[in-house]
Amino acid sequence: MSDPIDFYYDFVSPYAYLGSIAVGPVAARHGREVRWRPILLGVSVLQVMGLKPVPDTPLKGTYAAHDWPRSARLLGIAHDPRAPLLRSSLTAMRAVCWLDERDRPLSVRLAAALFAAHWAGGRDIAEPDVVADVAAGLDLDAGELLAAIASPAVKQRLRDEVDAAIARGVFGAPTFIVDSEMFWGADRLPQVDRWLETGGW
Amino acid sequence: MSDPIDFYYDFVSPYAYLGSIAVGPVAARHGREVRWRPILLGVSVLQVMGLKPVPDTPLKGTYAAHDWPRSARLLGIAHDPRAPLLRSSLTAMRAVCWLDERDRPLSVRLAAALFAAHWAGGRDIAEPDVVADVAAGLDLDAGELLAAIASPAVKQRLRDEVDAAIARGVFGAPTFIVDSEMFWGADRLPQVDRWLETGGW
Repeated sequence: MSDPIDFYYDFVSPYAYLGSIAVGPVAARHGREVRWRPILLGVSVLQVMGLKPVPDTPLKGTYAAHDWPRSARLLGIAHDPRAPLLRSSLTAMRAVCWLDERDRPLSVRLAAALFAAHWAGGRDIAEPDVVADVAAGLDLDAGELLAAIASPAVKQRLRDEVDAAIARGVFGAPTFIVDSEMFWGADRLPQVDRWLETGGW
Repeated sequence: MSDPIDFYYDFVSPYAYLGSIAVGPVAARHGREVRWRPILLGVSVLQVMGLKPVPDTPLKGTYAAHDWPRSARLLGIAHDPRAPLLRSSLTAMRAVCWLDERDRPLSVRLAAALFAAHWAGGRDIAEPDVVADVAAGLDLDAGELLAAIASPAVKQRLRDEVDAAIARGVFGAPTFIVDSEMFWGADRLPQVDRWLETGGW
């Protein structure tokens, strides 16, 4: 069995939402699993790279607000072009990080449900109650989840994962790593597909 | 005759170099001309957006240095992966801007030759002498060109063009505008192609 495709995501990025769905057929075509891994753009982009969030960047913010729904339409991915910006993904990322240790397949289902709730459902997953509600839809115990999110161990685990991603050179979302080769951006999936098909060029 | 594809470029960007070549077949397929237009990332990215140059950005700079030659190989575009960073495109951009008013087709040939000299030929077009030498290869008078570059009128014309681009929302290079629809990035040319084919989605 070949190595999985590492898929780095942060819920704040609508492009990561598109990538989370679009990577599926690419992985399936080549018999690869997708390993979901967290990155926090608040750490990589703001702290390490010293940039500002895309929505707060003149010109680029306006472009991205027009571009990501356009890409979603092209890909046929359900979305809400008026979905609110996600100002903090910490709660949602911690929830998935906690569940990843207990039940990885379920954690991926939770991550997908959270992505969809925000970027297609127009709900604000910065709110812990919304995260708990989405989790409840997967029969997860909301009280347990909210307690876990607040625990120092889960916070530290997420931070450790993000530090490991950055140490690997990951800075954006979505990022895909196939056989040690890194591709940044949902629009690079055709290159990922080609890389898997050819073994690289 | 349909409107041309507006192609915004800055010599500092190796991605703009890739876009300058890859846009050709897309335009030809749809019977469109390509209208080369200047943007200065030193104005849009640094001054207006308040970001730093990609090569100076931690993590992203390292990625881009690996990524653009990889994209060039995939596209089959001649390139030198060890080409030096281009620290200032002002001289080269002004040379093309000057020539654009006198002989537009020749100005495009000059721009293409300057792109190739830097990103495939490993020459540093930040140097006025190199720009003049490349221009001489197109039978342009080097002395006349160097004098033109230094003239306030040419400097102002480039600045006016860049201001007009930014007023239109252009911030990166390459940027393509087809029928008022803006696409940023060489890797968006498949979307440009699709847009021209379908009339939009």
